[in-house]
Amino acid sequence: MTETRLRFGILGCANIARKVSRAILLSPNTTISAIGSRSLEKATAFASENRFPESTNVYGSYDSVLEDPDVDAVYVPLPTSLHLRWAVLAAEKKKHVLLEKPVALNVGELDAILEACESNGVQFMDATMWMHHPRTQMIKQVILSDEQRFGQLKSVHSTFSYVGEGDFLKNDIRVNPNLDSLGALGDAGWYCMRAILWAHDYDLPKTVTAFRDPEYNESGVILSCGASLNWEKDGKVATFYCSFLSNLCMDLIALRTRGNFRVHDFIIPFNEKVGSFEAVANSRWTELGCAPEPSEYTIATDLPQEALMVQEFARLVHGIRGGKAKPEKKWAVISRKTQLVIDAVVASIKNGFVPVEVVY
Amino acid sequence: MTETRLRFGILGCANIARKVSRAILLSPNTTISAIGSRSLEKATAFASENRFPESTNVYGSYDSVLEDPDVDAVYVPLPTSLHLRWAVLAAEKKKHVLLEKPVALNVGELDAILEACESNGVQFMDATMWMHHPRTQMIKQVILSDEQRFGQLKSVHSTFSYVGEGDFLKNDIRVNPNLDSLGALGDAGWYCMRAILWAHDYDLPKTVTAFRDPEYNESGVILSCGASLNWEKDGKVATFYCSFLSNLCMDLIALRTRGNFRVHDFIIPFNEKVGSFEAVANSRWTELGCAPEPSEYTIATDLPQEALMVQEFARLVHGIRGGKAKPEKKWAVISRKTQLVIDAVVASIKNGFVPVEVVY
Repeated sequence: MTETRLRFGILGCANIARKVSRAILLSPNTTISAIGSRSLEKATAFASENRFPESTNVYGSYDSVLEDPDVDAVYVPLPTSLHLRWAVLAAEKKKHVLLEKPVALNVGELDAILEACESNGVQFMDATMWMHHPRTQMIKQVILSDEQRFGQLKSVHSTFSYVGEGDFLKNDIRVNPNLDSLGALGDAGWYCMRAILWAHDYDLPKTVTAFRDPEYNESGVILSCGASLNWEKDGKVATFYCSFLSNLCMDLIALRTRGNFRVHDFIIPFNEKVGSFEAVANSRWTELGCAPEPSEYTIATDLPQEALMVQEFARLVHGIRGGKAKPEKKWAVISRKTQLVIDAVVASIKNGFVPVEVVY
Repeated sequence: MTETRLRFGILGCANIARKVSRAILLSPNTTISAIGSRSLEKATAFASENRFPESTNVYGSYDSVLEDPDVDAVYVPLPTSLHLRWAVLAAEKKKHVLLEKPVALNVGELDAILEACESNGVQFMDATMWMHHPRTQMIKQVILSDEQRFGQLKSVHSTFSYVGEGDFLKNDIRVNPNLDSLGALGDAGWYCMRAILWAHDYDLPKTVTAFRDPEYNESGVILSCGASLNWEKDGKVATFYCSFLSNLCMDLIALRTRGNFRVHDFIIPFNEKVGSFEAVANSRWTELGCAPEPSEYTIATDLPQEALMVQEFARLVHGIRGGKAKPEKKWAVISRKTQLVIDAVVASIKNGFVPVEVVY
């Protein structure tokens, strides 16, 4: 049986929508049927520049996309402050929701979005692309799940930094207090938090303690920050650092009792077709040094991670539409846990870098 | 003029003394003239096993080494709790002091050692070997000193972990509360702290805040811990994690505003003859990803880093003995700063993980 392609409507013309639109067109089970922007002209140009199908409906509003019966699902790359309104409206119109990260300004807003998705029977997924790279599954299966060989998890460190160029630090959506008030924490820190939780099989930390040196722009939006996460069992600890002020770094390092692994580009692989990581187990001291050296592992992928993401999203939706399955809750739970830790970092910073408990 | 070789006396037969003895015999300006242990039998066996020169004086006490007129300098690999007594006595006997790390149980003890060295005009150096690897100088000169290309330092993360095998966690000197009460913090954390300070050009952090999850053995000695270091200027922050319970990891990552570098074996290079590191500058977002990828740099060394260390120590001593120079104070200052940060971590843990100010 040949499944029809899942038809996406795109809300807005954000830069990231270029990459995800390409992914929707690359994925074998999806296509684009509509795009809406507050400016019809902008939407028209965007559709043309990104080689949308001729048949794409182009609108001068987001509402029109949601009203379009040719739209099965929406991809929402709008500023975070608009997620609550448009994700909820989309769900109410029975559109499945692929939502850019950070998914919400806080867990209260996210809960309203998740509630709308659940009560309308639509699939929710956040657009955390690296989760869908085969490298991610490989590390999970080969290393994180192999307690016999790699032992128990002890420590994770995750970094995402990049330099906000030109007037980014003043004028970009990601540092505008009315649009993306979480700043670097929501944009870059989201990935760090997700990676830490992923490495911990989504076991939430007990407390989160922010580092004392966040940086802010003139509007008070975070440009760099970090925190330690504490499980208060088995000595498990994690740290993250995120920044718009440091040169690109996308490191993830996990230490286990018998082995460890490292990824240097966990968020966006330097090579779209090949992901790599380093791992080592059972290191020993030798007469003069230590061995073995970490080994490099690579895994190829025909589709880029963002195309694998929309493909998986479409697979879930097809199951729902075929009456074979209910919406997969996993993605809502993972998003909510990520948001909870983000919220705890915010609270820790606001309260003078005290430890903040994380409760699901 | 051919300089005579600096003649070392070795205090004790610790495991690490095997490597440093080899280094003293490898370095072109040093030799071994004496070894002392509480057991003459043990000292004799150690000298034989490690191919000490035939002329080496072998003693059944540490005192005898200090009394030996053929000894110019001592290498002190004794348990940390014995450093105060034996380093001070050595200085009083006008022996130059190469002291294993951690140099002391606290900065008060270290100050007594440094005072003894200074008032007796002898050179002090701690045995932090990686400081003397040409890779270390290369990173400093090429990256850390090139503000034009790499920008300002923002964040450093440093890890040293290894698995204490067998009965290590119960019985090794490094976890004995009467011998090395600083445990993993003193043994492994020392390197992390030194690396962080080195990357910051020895600018001390303003505060240190320990993570909430240290692990201890039955005697209350630290087996794993970490902390965040905060400069409270320009958003500078550093983190470290040290452990006897996680598989070998020796990572150092520094993020700067325009570039960064990474070393995976900064403490003991996997290859004794070649050190490598990764660095990248001016990373940029591209249409679909980011570039350039970090580059790998390598630097060869004929002598292992521990031989370069004793060679440099001997060079300084020869300057003093030739009347050309006074003892180089740099190493005392660096040791003291490292110890101060260690002490602050201890204080933060003891006081419930509060921020502790670091004052020189």
